[in-house]
Amino acid sequence: MHIEPPREEWLNRRLKLQQMMKSQGLSGCLVTQNVGIYYYTGSMQTGYLFVPAVEESTYYVRRSVARALSESNVKVAELGSFRNFGRQLEADYPELFGATVSEGSLPSSFSSVPLIGTDLDVMPTQLYFRLTEAVPQAKLTDASGLLRQARSVKTPYEIARIERAAEAVAQALDVGCERLHEGMTELELMATIERELRSHGHIGLMRMRGYNQEIMTGVVAAGDAAAEPTYFDGPTGGRGLSPAAPQSASLRPIGRNEPILIDIGCCIDGYVIDQTRTAVIGELSPELRAAYETAEAIIRRAEQELKPGAIPEQIYAEALMMAEAAGLSSNFMGYGRDQVKFLGHGIGLEIDEWPVLAKGFRDPLEAGMTIAVEPKFTFPGVGVVGIENTYVITETGCRALTVSPEGIYSKQHS
Amino acid sequence: MHIEPPREEWLNRRLKLQQMMKSQGLSGCLVTQNVGIYYYTGSMQTGYLFVPAVEESTYYVRRSVARALSESNVKVAELGSFRNFGRQLEADYPELFGATVSEGSLPSSFSSVPLIGTDLDVMPTQLYFRLTEAVPQAKLTDASGLLRQARSVKTPYEIARIERAAEAVAQALDVGCERLHEGMTELELMATIERELRSHGHIGLMRMRGYNQEIMTGVVAAGDAAAEPTYFDGPTGGRGLSPAAPQSASLRPIGRNEPILIDIGCCIDGYVIDQTRTAVIGELSPELRAAYETAEAIIRRAEQELKPGAIPEQIYAEALMMAEAAGLSSNFMGYGRDQVKFLGHGIGLEIDEWPVLAKGFRDPLEAGMTIAVEPKFTFPGVGVVGIENTYVITETGCRALTVSPEGIYSKQHS
Repeated sequence: MHIEPPREEWLNRRLKLQQMMKSQGLSGCLVTQNVGIYYYTGSMQTGYLFVPAVEESTYYVRRSVARALSESNVKVAELGSFRNFGRQLEADYPELFGATVSEGSLPSSFSSVPLIGTDLDVMPTQLYFRLTEAVPQAKLTDASGLLRQARSVKTPYEIARIERAAEAVAQALDVGCERLHEGMTELELMATIERELRSHGHIGLMRMRGYNQEIMTGVVAAGDAAAEPTYFDGPTGGRGLSPAAPQSASLRPIGRNEPILIDIGCCIDGYVIDQTRTAVIGELSPELRAAYETAEAIIRRAEQELKPGAIPEQIYAEALMMAEAAGLSSNFMGYGRDQVKFLGHGIGLEIDEWPVLAKGFRDPLEAGMTIAVEPKFTFPGVGVVGIENTYVITETGCRALTVSPEGIYSKQHS
Repeated sequence: MHIEPPREEWLNRRLKLQQMMKSQGLSGCLVTQNVGIYYYTGSMQTGYLFVPAVEESTYYVRRSVARALSESNVKVAELGSFRNFGRQLEADYPELFGATVSEGSLPSSFSSVPLIGTDLDVMPTQLYFRLTEAVPQAKLTDASGLLRQARSVKTPYEIARIERAAEAVAQALDVGCERLHEGMTELELMATIERELRSHGHIGLMRMRGYNQEIMTGVVAAGDAAAEPTYFDGPTGGRGLSPAAPQSASLRPIGRNEPILIDIGCCIDGYVIDQTRTAVIGELSPELRAAYETAEAIIRRAEQELKPGAIPEQIYAEALMMAEAAGLSSNFMGYGRDQVKFLGHGIGLEIDEWPVLAKGFRDPLEAGMTIAVEPKFTFPGVGVVGIENTYVITETGCRALTVSPEGIYSKQHS
């Protein structure tokens, strides 16, 4: 399933980060999260990646050094004692870290301490305090935004990986719909889809960056169960199997004439996809059909807007207006107080990447960004209808990466 | 799949935590992690749980308040603006938080600021700094150890949930072994097992506490691929599907006469199980059979030691000695520099709970603790053999929760 990117891919990613950190006055970035380390090295072993603003990067690995050596596109060093990590950095980058705390010298002025950006949005606090002790030679600062921004524009290699995942999801959806029948539980439908995804190389998990956020291959849910609100930071929740797993599929049997939400993703070679289709055994009510049509109209409008220079929050505002014009404001992207405040989200190694089509995201879109757009309408006690495609921004507009046919998937006989 | 615990279960858990925090001088605990919140409330929505050393707890929920209200065994309050969280706590617990920062009063002395324990081993640093700003009325301190310790002794309800998961794993293993055949890829075997686990109610993910640690329903791997080292904090890694998923099953076909490691778990109603069996199509070499026998001997010895009062690090030390006596020191629990330094681990809502059978764990075992014991031997280029059972400590010894038969699972025809 794994395909190696072109050799220069990894170097170019680091060069881009180096450009960005220099403009923010950072002397380097220390990446601690596995996904971030993979993005810059091609390896996901336990350790820390140091990317200086100039010079070569070093991947300090605790375990497995052997595996890192075989995979990494960055120089690997065995991480010695954690307490001496600062001294190890100082020895490897004397010009950067050496000036500050050498014994006998005058106390360094604040400005001579190198400012090192790191991923404080995910790094546990305990690790942060241990790092500040182990590396007194530097001042750590939050570079989460910069690190997320650096990954928001995808390379052709990355886009090809996402397309591979999109193909797997389309095939799994076909198998799921073929086996769908009245009385089948949500969980059975989900398990059928997951089995198919695995056979196409789904790694068995999908990564999310948000604290406490989890995803179980998406949400497969029908009727009132699909409309149950939950903590998951998306427009649909689902009843789930337990209060300890309060989202996605439940043991509820799927009935006739109720909306079946099939919001699924998978992760192939590290890259995730996100796609939603609405299905029914029998027919949906005119009200639900109309809501579904509105969702398709919103996504058509978004497709026209998605291009370099467009402002994410404006695309979201347009969608809100269209939902309002359809009289569906309180059903849009969840119901009432459980609504989420976005229309779509960046996607790549994680399912909650930047940019988000939401208020506050004002940086213009750029070619290469990949965004899942998911207009959905929730009707408590009744169900959820909607659609979701993942797009890449091109030089002139956008192109869908998801390939499943659109429209309501209607099954007359079961 | 969900079974409600006895009503007093939740209250007793909080009472125990209150006892423990008082002995450590804490005025309360603020639990931010989803698993911790579930453990004390029966609900896993987005928010924060405050457990004061005395008085009733409050579950401050951002989303979904409706869901939390329907599930929680603790009083639910809607979390207002995050910036005002301190004022909200102050209004709800005036005696605890009110004395310190009222305007116009003299600056409070340090000792009058309540010390609030929290889960800094998992809480992202960014959230920590936001909390310290939002709640200047308190001093946050690391109570990770206390929170992990509080959960290490399981109730009968919890043990019953783990047994349910053990039953599912045993049935999935049977199905996997039945369908096992020469030329089947590791991934196909894993997918077959996962499909079965899902039909028994596996929630679709297994939770780990460690930063950057992930688990894909365990490790199913054969021959040299099973012996490949990786970052996963366990004795077995596996090749995996990609450097972006560097553990567990790969696309390698399973051959004759090579060890097949089937180290699988699942999560039912929030609780996880962990079990390993060794299989082969054909026969293992005498060397591998002998290593497997040593693993069984180590687990037999551990069963004799596992009882209230036993010291975890001594059980680990004994296992090391047995491995050494068998001439297998460098193969035990991984190979060479990629060895892990433990024999077993606590298990419950997370797969990496306390206690760990490892150096430094000196607190005596207590009845109700649940521990997975996993002696394994790695032979680079050849494979991994071993066994893993999960046990509960009883009043007089231990009882296995895993139910699959032991011994090498040998399939002569495929």
